[in-house]
Amino acid sequence: MKHFSRNTIDELDHLFRINLINSCSGYKSANLIGTQSREGISNLAIFSSVIHMGSNPPLLGFVLRPTKVARHTYTNIKDSAYYTINHVPFSIAEEAHHTSAKYGEEVSEFDMTGLQEEIKNGFYAPFVSGAPVQMGMKFIEEHFIKSNETLLIIGEIKDLFINSELLEEDGYVNLSKGEIATISGLDGYSLPVQTKRFGYQRPRELNDPVTTREKGWSKF
Amino acid sequence: MKHFSRNTIDELDHLFRINLINSCSGYKSANLIGTQSREGISNLAIFSSVIHMGSNPPLLGFVLRPTKVARHTYTNIKDSAYYTINHVPFSIAEEAHHTSAKYGEEVSEFDMTGLQEEIKNGFYAPFVSGAPVQMGMKFIEEHFIKSNETLLIIGEIKDLFINSELLEEDGYVNLSKGEIATISGLDGYSLPVQTKRFGYQRPRELNDPVTTREKGWSKF
Repeated sequence: MKHFSRNTIDELDHLFRINLINSCSGYKSANLIGTQSREGISNLAIFSSVIHMGSNPPLLGFVLRPTKVARHTYTNIKDSAYYTINHVPFSIAEEAHHTSAKYGEEVSEFDMTGLQEEIKNGFYAPFVSGAPVQMGMKFIEEHFIKSNETLLIIGEIKDLFINSELLEEDGYVNLSKGEIATISGLDGYSLPVQTKRFGYQRPRELNDPVTTREKGWSKF
Repeated sequence: MKHFSRNTIDELDHLFRINLINSCSGYKSANLIGTQSREGISNLAIFSSVIHMGSNPPLLGFVLRPTKVARHTYTNIKDSAYYTINHVPFSIAEEAHHTSAKYGEEVSEFDMTGLQEEIKNGFYAPFVSGAPVQMGMKFIEEHFIKSNETLLIIGEIKDLFINSELLEEDGYVNLSKGEIATISGLDGYSLPVQTKRFGYQRPRELNDPVTTREKGWSKF
């Protein structure tokens, strides 16, 4: 295996380092966050940092760097408290990724991509039309990360729209039925397949055959 | 589309709600976090909340609920400051998922699964042998999320081991070459394929053909 010590990482070329470290956490969610500015301009930006925070109340978080990228998203959320989170099918990944281009605040990414906005249910922020999962979010809490001056933004789900074909009987949303993408690194998009569910796990007995089988799988 | 308002969500059956809301953020990372207790007992637990926080310094975060699940992981990190994050190939997803079973603190999940621990480079916490990406982490910052009493744990990468076959020339780690899994919901594991990279995006001209094409893709 290739080994990078902390010193090696710190001395890497900038682009090599951001590619490497952005891939390190594993697969990430692929979401478009929609907001509206005080001036009524829509904003749409791709994020790979949306995470589940809890189910009761239903909370999601995401990380941003307000002083660098994603500034419009942050400003609009702080001004209005409302935003939408929309899932990205693999078929529109390239258009979704283009929202990472730096446009001025007077430009709506909906006007610069094939993506169409959808206003519904009286929600202040725009949804992405056709997205198989759309969520209307309200800001509730933010945390400043001292170590690198990023922000964790936490919001609660106010409205949740799911394509009915994806919703299973027990509430599980089958993302693979919606051909929803996942992100790796800064710009890699993949299509997950072969979804298996393993259910709730109960402790095995100490003499369970699995625990005594030959140790050490190793593909590599 | 099926619509769940916030009131509807709050009134859902508990199991339906946790399946639904755990699926809502999209695909999640699949990681095994390894720690060692003061008594020298190894602990291994599956997490789907590991996220990229920043590249310089190289920081990763994850979310846990210290008073409910994952208590041993939290205690061991607070006691020692060290932990490992290991990626989960799809082929070992079922064994990895079994670490979510509730064992007492005197039991090592390495003894109850087919997973084997690997001690190396003088690192206090155990790695998962054979994992195509292994990271030695040091705790640096935690944030208490008031809205639901969870914790965001932030650590810096001290040692990074990557199977050389996965590492591309520009630093991108090709997770699909390692057949690394992604998680959806509480117990769904998928294998991402067809990885495409779209590169750094520059703004389009206002008369770019893409921006004027017929709006509104809609698979559904």
